[in-house]
Amino acid sequence: MNDVKELDPTVVLGTGLLGASVGAALTRAGVTVHLSDAVLSHARVAETLGAGTTAKPDPAAVRLVVVATPPRSLAAVIGEALDRYPNAAVTDVGSVKGRVLRQLQATGRDLSRYLGSHPMAGSQHSGPVSASPDLFCDRTWAVTPHREVTEATADRVRALIRLCGARYVAFTPQEHDSAVAQVSHLPQLVSVLMADHLLGIPSSHLALAGQGLRDVTRIAGSDPGLWEQIIAGNVDALRPELEAVRAHLDEMIAALDDPTHRVRPILQRGVNGTRQIPGKHGAPAMDYGHLVIEIPDTPGALAQLFRDIADAGVNIEDIDIQHDLVRQVGYLEVAVEPGHVREVSEAMTAAGWKLT
Amino acid sequence: MNDVKELDPTVVLGTGLLGASVGAALTRAGVTVHLSDAVLSHARVAETLGAGTTAKPDPAAVRLVVVATPPRSLAAVIGEALDRYPNAAVTDVGSVKGRVLRQLQATGRDLSRYLGSHPMAGSQHSGPVSASPDLFCDRTWAVTPHREVTEATADRVRALIRLCGARYVAFTPQEHDSAVAQVSHLPQLVSVLMADHLLGIPSSHLALAGQGLRDVTRIAGSDPGLWEQIIAGNVDALRPELEAVRAHLDEMIAALDDPTHRVRPILQRGVNGTRQIPGKHGAPAMDYGHLVIEIPDTPGALAQLFRDIADAGVNIEDIDIQHDLVRQVGYLEVAVEPGHVREVSEAMTAAGWKLT
Repeated sequence: MNDVKELDPTVVLGTGLLGASVGAALTRAGVTVHLSDAVLSHARVAETLGAGTTAKPDPAAVRLVVVATPPRSLAAVIGEALDRYPNAAVTDVGSVKGRVLRQLQATGRDLSRYLGSHPMAGSQHSGPVSASPDLFCDRTWAVTPHREVTEATADRVRALIRLCGARYVAFTPQEHDSAVAQVSHLPQLVSVLMADHLLGIPSSHLALAGQGLRDVTRIAGSDPGLWEQIIAGNVDALRPELEAVRAHLDEMIAALDDPTHRVRPILQRGVNGTRQIPGKHGAPAMDYGHLVIEIPDTPGALAQLFRDIADAGVNIEDIDIQHDLVRQVGYLEVAVEPGHVREVSEAMTAAGWKLT
Repeated sequence: MNDVKELDPTVVLGTGLLGASVGAALTRAGVTVHLSDAVLSHARVAETLGAGTTAKPDPAAVRLVVVATPPRSLAAVIGEALDRYPNAAVTDVGSVKGRVLRQLQATGRDLSRYLGSHPMAGSQHSGPVSASPDLFCDRTWAVTPHREVTEATADRVRALIRLCGARYVAFTPQEHDSAVAQVSHLPQLVSVLMADHLLGIPSSHLALAGQGLRDVTRIAGSDPGLWEQIIAGNVDALRPELEAVRAHLDEMIAALDDPTHRVRPILQRGVNGTRQIPGKHGAPAMDYGHLVIEIPDTPGALAQLFRDIADAGVNIEDIDIQHDLVRQVGYLEVAVEPGHVREVSEAMTAAGWKLT
């Protein structure tokens, strides 16, 4: 069975940014999507933008329900969807998984048709007007199986993820919540911590703010109503992360008593930490290849070297001048994608440069 | 006297990113710039890139010396420059001002020709190859007068800032150091704190990282050798800032015990904090004008509204759907630059829309 038939028709409950984007992606693929929202005008906006129809489906025919309502309402809406659409697989796109599953289990329902999920996509804008069928392209879409889920249910959620162009990855609900506490909810709170601190700073001082401060505090400007619900749903995973940060902050404050010896190792750990983050779209962290080219001490040598590198036609990722203080000779270090090291080396050697 | 004559010739000591960019800006303006660096190849690279000449100047003729060496060496290099160039004004571009001034005062020198400064510009890349004569365009350039400085010295530093296209702003050295502790050094350490924490996180969890984590940790990847010196030079201003962050972190951890009531106010303070940051290039934080347009409950109304907004030809900064649950009617909130509110209002009213 192909993915479109597998999911036709689908119901999307909640037509904010995520729901409307799911609707738009499935509609584009050829699936009939029925949209519903507690706020009628939201569903109408999503319909206008091509995310589906606000016409009602035949409940018995529905094959998939995607619940994209605010975090606080998820368990109730998922439960009602299981009751109302007796032949549908039901998933949700909430950012915390464990609590919702426990709430559903507490109702005593058969959960063989429920499989929670969480697409790692969003935007600083919310609401259907920012929706796009490409929102999930190449993004990771986490799925959190539990022991009651049937293979038929999992098949439909996998079809959804494929039609949205995303990449499937499975976690237990607990593992998922621990992971998002670490890589999403904790950075959110750290950003808030820095932004909150700005309220006590004179505006004349803030005139010296640069891009660094803007980057660190950008996500602190996100919707507090949504984030309050996310954090409330993941308190248990978040607390130990915040406590670990406090321990490191204590270490940092203590290090100021001996900055010459104790600050550098902390800064270096920060650099190493940034290297743990995979590349965008889930590519592994790029480990660039490096070439080191000697710069002869003759006029115009460096300008010629830049020209020859440009002629090699390879994308230069980084460039750095190094030096040998004894020999008073310079070196140019060039970083390229790992697969291109040999190519650039050969081109440079052919052009008469000495590689070290 | 015009700015070029006021500064011709100038000496730049240290040809990293900042020194080479100053040289390039002054050279472009028509000032003869003499470049010097402890690493000969760095000065040669800067020369190749148009930042000046490595030829030696007549010491008595030099009118301005710009010291752009690493933080640790500043006081010694500034002192030597005052001795070697008896008719020059001397400034530096270091990011901490108080300690350097105290170190110079301790030598007993006449400091009437020294005026420290700090351009708020940089790049994640260092070294002369990233230099640009436009690096300082529209940036704030802080100047930190002390009581010995003569007006003639201040005039030359102001001419430098004008020729670099930057905006002059004066602080006492102590005020400056407190300001950069708050808006630059503290965000740097907060970013390091978050990045450091990633070292303890499984790589499977990091696969869920999104743009938020990347933004918060970007500056933690900066050169630890440079930042160690900056932090060591500003420990006294930094310590109370870090301690205040620790107090807020304790409050945040405590709030997790009652997330329904205590988390939202903290998140709202974060949102308010981001609004304290001035716009890029020092423009005041933009307070957008908002229009609210009623969306009639008729098919195609929203699509027509989008077309009419587009036809009004004004840059829309943000857009949001609101709703009235009782009347089941929707509203579109549109944010535009404050000066355009009336224009857009009139265009929408003329097109038959009802504004609230």
